[in-house]
Amino acid sequence: MPHLTKQTSITRVGQVMEHIQTRIASRSLVPGARLPSIRQCAEKTGVSKSTVVDAYDRLVAEGTIVSRRGSGFFVAGHMPPLSIAQLAPKLDRAIDPFWVSRQSLSTDDSVLKPGCGWLPPDWMPHDALRRALRHLARGDDTRLTDYGTPLGSLPLRQLLGRRMGDYGIPARPEQIMLTESGTQAIDLLCRMLIEPSDTVLVDDPCYFNFQALLHAHRATIVAVPYQTDGPAMDAFEETIARHQPRLYVTNSGLHNPTGASLSPVKAHKILKICEKHRVTIIEDDIFADFETTAAPRLAAFDGLENVVHIGSFSKTLSASVRCGYIATQVNWIDKLVDLKIATSFGGGNLSSEIVLSVLRDGSYRKHMEQVRQKLARAMTDVTAKFSPLGIVPITPPAAGMFLWARLPHDMDATALAHAALRENIILAPGNVFSLSKTAGSFMRFNVAQSQDARLLDFLKAEAALQK
Amino acid sequence: MPHLTKQTSITRVGQVMEHIQTRIASRSLVPGARLPSIRQCAEKTGVSKSTVVDAYDRLVAEGTIVSRRGSGFFVAGHMPPLSIAQLAPKLDRAIDPFWVSRQSLSTDDSVLKPGCGWLPPDWMPHDALRRALRHLARGDDTRLTDYGTPLGSLPLRQLLGRRMGDYGIPARPEQIMLTESGTQAIDLLCRMLIEPSDTVLVDDPCYFNFQALLHAHRATIVAVPYQTDGPAMDAFEETIARHQPRLYVTNSGLHNPTGASLSPVKAHKILKICEKHRVTIIEDDIFADFETTAAPRLAAFDGLENVVHIGSFSKTLSASVRCGYIATQVNWIDKLVDLKIATSFGGGNLSSEIVLSVLRDGSYRKHMEQVRQKLARAMTDVTAKFSPLGIVPITPPAAGMFLWARLPHDMDATALAHAALRENIILAPGNVFSLSKTAGSFMRFNVAQSQDARLLDFLKAEAALQK
Repeated sequence: MPHLTKQTSITRVGQVMEHIQTRIASRSLVPGARLPSIRQCAEKTGVSKSTVVDAYDRLVAEGTIVSRRGSGFFVAGHMPPLSIAQLAPKLDRAIDPFWVSRQSLSTDDSVLKPGCGWLPPDWMPHDALRRALRHLARGDDTRLTDYGTPLGSLPLRQLLGRRMGDYGIPARPEQIMLTESGTQAIDLLCRMLIEPSDTVLVDDPCYFNFQALLHAHRATIVAVPYQTDGPAMDAFEETIARHQPRLYVTNSGLHNPTGASLSPVKAHKILKICEKHRVTIIEDDIFADFETTAAPRLAAFDGLENVVHIGSFSKTLSASVRCGYIATQVNWIDKLVDLKIATSFGGGNLSSEIVLSVLRDGSYRKHMEQVRQKLARAMTDVTAKFSPLGIVPITPPAAGMFLWARLPHDMDATALAHAALRENIILAPGNVFSLSKTAGSFMRFNVAQSQDARLLDFLKAEAALQK
Repeated sequence: MPHLTKQTSITRVGQVMEHIQTRIASRSLVPGARLPSIRQCAEKTGVSKSTVVDAYDRLVAEGTIVSRRGSGFFVAGHMPPLSIAQLAPKLDRAIDPFWVSRQSLSTDDSVLKPGCGWLPPDWMPHDALRRALRHLARGDDTRLTDYGTPLGSLPLRQLLGRRMGDYGIPARPEQIMLTESGTQAIDLLCRMLIEPSDTVLVDDPCYFNFQALLHAHRATIVAVPYQTDGPAMDAFEETIARHQPRLYVTNSGLHNPTGASLSPVKAHKILKICEKHRVTIIEDDIFADFETTAAPRLAAFDGLENVVHIGSFSKTLSASVRCGYIATQVNWIDKLVDLKIATSFGGGNLSSEIVLSVLRDGSYRKHMEQVRQKLARAMTDVTAKFSPLGIVPITPPAAGMFLWARLPHDMDATALAHAALRENIILAPGNVFSLSKTAGSFMRFNVAQSQDARLLDFLKAEAALQK
């Protein structure tokens, strides 16, 4: 098939172009910045120099970059070449919740991402996904072209119900609605449950995108310190009594970023307090399959009355196959379906069919067993390498990918993240996760992305500077 | 592979269960309603009676349905068996914009869907999609598991830019952001551009989901009569002057539901008025590839300054492969990316890779040529069959799937839709499209879904009743 080879070369040029475009979009290349030389870029991206030349030519033709005779290629725009001064806007973005996301979503493989929230590509189950795609290519026509049903694939919802049953969560298929992602699940719940200026309670620290999402809903956000076994209960009750939040959004197992898990006694107290004050709880459980021993689930104690349970497969199976879900009381499902139709006209079958097929053929279970073992080894390895530097976790996480550590000498984590970015290392400084901005000397490390020697060398050098 | 055959049988049972679940979700089976007999269901769904028995047993086990000895299976719930009285809530929903969506999203193949907004499954390019899936299964690992970049696949954005260029719309790749759907595109724009209680202008009639989406954003909706060449201009200017809307959401080519297209002179006036009153225009162009001759595009006249152009492939390629896009002024892209990350954490690569591969290998172009020819034939055929019944389009549509027709004898379209539902025919009555509810005797027919004799027989019978 001649067009395939043609396609491949188009794709290589396209990939180089996207590599540059993405660095511009993610602000790792700002207007006026000099692009890597043809040779450097060819080495970085592993393509021939002529491919890079083609890519740069097309970027010039598009007006994305400009060529200055003798001095190379520069990002289009009216700013002078990159200087430290011009890093300022980027530095400002560093404590903006979007900054880590944008940086981490860069596909630039030359960048280390200990700050990002997912596994490296080579940890993901590509063979299982390829099997699923081939299976789908042989399968029923309608799955390839039809809209999903309002709730989404029933066989998948039944399977998800059984999985939740293993945690003691009583979720019947008609209580489960599929979404495009865990994030969309929370978004739809916010659309249903909160009005602009309603108050929402989160943990401090918490997953930074909770803040971004709640800002998009114009919610007022309050936070309670999160400890090694759940929120600080006195502050929890006092804050709820004072601010009367409509929602509490949290993780019970493998809390992001701390890696801590909720204790049964705190789970029970949380439920009592939230019932008393009519606070609905959104339990975001996307890291469940990383657990080695299951933490108590609020949704299990509560029976999905006052707790909404959500999950997804973006972190475990594929972020490219978009599939999340909501399990909630049956009375809320119709409204959620209406909101899903109104705002995304429902989901497609494609992602749910792929997830279903990988869950069914056993490859998901085997994959996650391997991932849990690799993560345990990485956690031990990274902890051992960090401790001589004085980078020590608050509590050794039971499982998962996150190491939430205090930096030595009250080092400024945001400043460290800026310095790291100049070395093509993306870090996740503590205050990105902290509503009260009291985590200034904390850092969240993803141990699966922290084993490259460049990171350790960088941290050693920075630690030395502080002495 | 034994698990495959096992899977297949699981899938058949699952499909029957989903068939029933979906009819319950879409309210075509209400609590207390009697299910089709084993035999009827087996015939309807084309599976063996034993498969139906398995499916019903599992639905009973789930508590979704109950078995009453001697009298059959019934939808669980405390209401007595279905009676006309109990259709009331469903009748109420008939003028609710969600009603047609929910009904149409049913996968029940025994139901005719002349009211739905997409093509029948057997009109869709399954072979091309299968090729794309196999191509993807052979392809680069990262596409299978990575998040998309903030803007989405650059090669696809470049290709979309060239396609828009064919309409005179100057969209550079960095002005284009991929979304999960055209609906999500409008949703993100509403998040960025309107505050609760802001006013938004739509056409009367317009695509019913615009109203549903704008309600979800708590917008105040105003509408202007849509004629055969665009909005009624006096009313347009007067309404904008009085209500000062922030947005105008419309289709320029093949307007939904009327099938009309905007005239150049009205396009020019609309742009002048909207610029004067600072109204941003969202031009929803998802039906572009159904056109045989291109209507003028507001985004082309305006150069994407004040007009945002959106599109998707749900209606032309696949609704299961979720991929839409926004083309807008470059200043708005960063904000839209932030909102996309906050509310869905960006898209996956899977859908965009499939769309890219089908667009590139030429199969999309060939597919759409065939679709346009089939639609032209269907339009002629359906128009000819309807006219003896006095069902005549306001204006014979130039192309596309929609026939917007006035019913004879000022027949009540909503009542007709209720009657049709009892015959397993889903119709789209005029008032679901009409903010002013002045389209009570109009009906939108999808000619690709209107060639079944059962529809004509039903309409003949109903027309006779009115005489």
